[in-house]
Amino acid sequence: MMACNTLVDIPALAQSLLAEVHGATRDGLGVTRESYGAGETAALRLLEERAEELGLRHEWDRAGNLWLSLPEETRNAPFLVIGSHADSVPQGGNFDGLAGIVAGMLMLLALRGRHEDAPPLRVLALRGEESAWYGKAYLGSLSLLGKLPPATLKRPHRDGVGLLSEAMSRCGADIEAIQRAQPLIDLTDIAAYLELHIEQGPIMVNRGWPVALVTGIRGNVRHNLIRCIGETGHSGAVPRWLRKDALLAVAELLSRMDEHWRVLLQMGMDMVMTTGICSTSAQSHAVSVIPGEVAFSFEVRSQDTQTLERFYTLMREECQAIERARGVRFEFDERLFTEPATMDAAWLRRIEAAAPPGMKLERMASGAGHDAAVFANAGVPSAMVFIRNENGSHNPHEAMEMEDFLLGVELLTRAVLSRLSH
Amino acid sequence: MMACNTLVDIPALAQSLLAEVHGATRDGLGVTRESYGAGETAALRLLEERAEELGLRHEWDRAGNLWLSLPEETRNAPFLVIGSHADSVPQGGNFDGLAGIVAGMLMLLALRGRHEDAPPLRVLALRGEESAWYGKAYLGSLSLLGKLPPATLKRPHRDGVGLLSEAMSRCGADIEAIQRAQPLIDLTDIAAYLELHIEQGPIMVNRGWPVALVTGIRGNVRHNLIRCIGETGHSGAVPRWLRKDALLAVAELLSRMDEHWRVLLQMGMDMVMTTGICSTSAQSHAVSVIPGEVAFSFEVRSQDTQTLERFYTLMREECQAIERARGVRFEFDERLFTEPATMDAAWLRRIEAAAPPGMKLERMASGAGHDAAVFANAGVPSAMVFIRNENGSHNPHEAMEMEDFLLGVELLTRAVLSRLSH
Repeated sequence: MMACNTLVDIPALAQSLLAEVHGATRDGLGVTRESYGAGETAALRLLEERAEELGLRHEWDRAGNLWLSLPEETRNAPFLVIGSHADSVPQGGNFDGLAGIVAGMLMLLALRGRHEDAPPLRVLALRGEESAWYGKAYLGSLSLLGKLPPATLKRPHRDGVGLLSEAMSRCGADIEAIQRAQPLIDLTDIAAYLELHIEQGPIMVNRGWPVALVTGIRGNVRHNLIRCIGETGHSGAVPRWLRKDALLAVAELLSRMDEHWRVLLQMGMDMVMTTGICSTSAQSHAVSVIPGEVAFSFEVRSQDTQTLERFYTLMREECQAIERARGVRFEFDERLFTEPATMDAAWLRRIEAAAPPGMKLERMASGAGHDAAVFANAGVPSAMVFIRNENGSHNPHEAMEMEDFLLGVELLTRAVLSRLSH
Repeated sequence: MMACNTLVDIPALAQSLLAEVHGATRDGLGVTRESYGAGETAALRLLEERAEELGLRHEWDRAGNLWLSLPEETRNAPFLVIGSHADSVPQGGNFDGLAGIVAGMLMLLALRGRHEDAPPLRVLALRGEESAWYGKAYLGSLSLLGKLPPATLKRPHRDGVGLLSEAMSRCGADIEAIQRAQPLIDLTDIAAYLELHIEQGPIMVNRGWPVALVTGIRGNVRHNLIRCIGETGHSGAVPRWLRKDALLAVAELLSRMDEHWRVLLQMGMDMVMTTGICSTSAQSHAVSVIPGEVAFSFEVRSQDTQTLERFYTLMREECQAIERARGVRFEFDERLFTEPATMDAAWLRRIEAAAPPGMKLERMASGAGHDAAVFANAGVPSAMVFIRNENGSHNPHEAMEMEDFLLGVELLTRAVLSRLSH
């Protein structure tokens, strides 16, 4: 199936690499590969061992990421990076991130014996892409490019024990250099960044696309923790006019924003809005107590920075109106902003042109964030392909078909071998 | 201050009884007196000891409640019960319940030497009034009157460890008799049930009433646990039309019901609505995951049974509409119903007539539930007085003034001594 000569049984190797990492990082039904933590390191070390056995060069950068390449590659020309991430959410799926690293390894093997027909190629297995562990995404790629906001290093682990800087340090990262926001690589050395990733939504399954081209990556504005403070009271004894019910205040906020969202979609805007966490206080709530406090998260994603900013402002204004009407108070933690990114038009055309005859490559935006956005926003021409995947991601039920995956690998391999100028 | 001769310093005794029970059941800032548990038993045993020292008769009934009376009382006539409860919510306040028992003890002492001027009087210190521990209120009074639904005995403790029947059994209750829903007392022996209780809302403080007459007690319909089941998904990758967001569904439900409530109040109905507990799943929620499940409670209270039933039906209909619109599903635990109760008009007049000259006794409904509702609904003429109390109840900041309390005790003492026929 691969468009190249090789002594390796590529489909069998792909299967076994994915299965081995799954086995080494299994946690209940799913896998757990903590950012800059045990499961992520286990996955990277296993990939490093297999790379060694396959005769690939392997080295670690100062952000703790793993690089793989062909030892016979001696050219100094700017190189293509085939990257993705090794970490997962808690009890997540096996393919989210890992598939892209394995794809890169397969591409290196596919180029063996003919690597000079393509630009120099390096595979980058990144750490810390998932925000689930330290509340901030793209830790490995931002650190590498000197773009990690220094305050991020002080973020606590989701369990409240330990800081990101400590975890990164244990993984061999150069905290001082990262703190200085100093690029750990010369950006001019990178010709382009390419990433293969499972789709994390249901669109490709619904439409029957095995592989698709990604045109852009949504950015987001986020608060991990907003607290609505009202006043507790006996549920029977306090009349409506004396209540400051924090839950009804949050319910009103979410319902209003949900309605605005519906209308804005109707008007053609690109956005999604999610409150993934919402809870009355577990220590003090009770069926017969008016909730005095509700903690919740808020996230908006869009391909358009202006839509993000305006919807965020609208949310803050609704909070103010509800504060006045209901006698409650909203308290916001740090606002986190991740820029939207646009994929490189020339690379999209080049990948499109590499599609096997008769295969129509559809284009779509990525709702989820990816390290490709970090490279794109740093000025590196970047492109992504999505692989069809059932049951979404961030859960153990991810279901990517091996056939779709190999089709994606072949497509990228053909693209890097193609003679089209970009 | 008391309208009687006594050798005991009544204000000092009241202070010390309240303070001693507080000391014995203190838990952090507040007190914890678990229904049919350690703190409640500690409070009752302490009151029994003090009753013994004060020369009062003390005995336990087959529901584990404590009775106090004057040993010199030998009449067989139906007796008046002065009752309230010894338990509290977790980390609750000291006066909720306890004040009414102490009031009864002071009344017995006030009648010493002249008890035949009043009908026979017995003080009833009830167990298990708070629903916080087993999700059901009035356990002691319902058991005593043979009205505890037998299934209630199988209810688990709020921590999930142990059943109500086991806890009651440890407190000496006759589980077999209670299971048979057999009255443990002859109702025709009870002439009336009177209760003094702190107000649990802010109305009396706001209006400047030290003592008030209670005209009726709100009933309620309740679900301790409703689950809204949707579908988890990646917050960036699933478009709005494919989402089944359980939280936005619950937010819409609560906002709709809140708006109906506002309108119904406007139309003159008596009701309050509360969702005290609401939470996305702590095991699996995350900022970037569409909530697939939300657990919440729902409670409506009203003096009017029809209002309760109709508002409940409205809630179920809104759930159905939201299920259809949003692709979610609502699952309901057992519906709990507590009947509203009306206080006895003749006793209200009698207490009113006993007010000191120049004191106007205001009337109000009780939003909170009380054991008096159980006696009233069993056909016992029942009445209550409320004592002004700042900062609500079910929290450590309850603040009843001793002066207001003694005024209430005096009022009830005068009422039982009055010669008006009822």
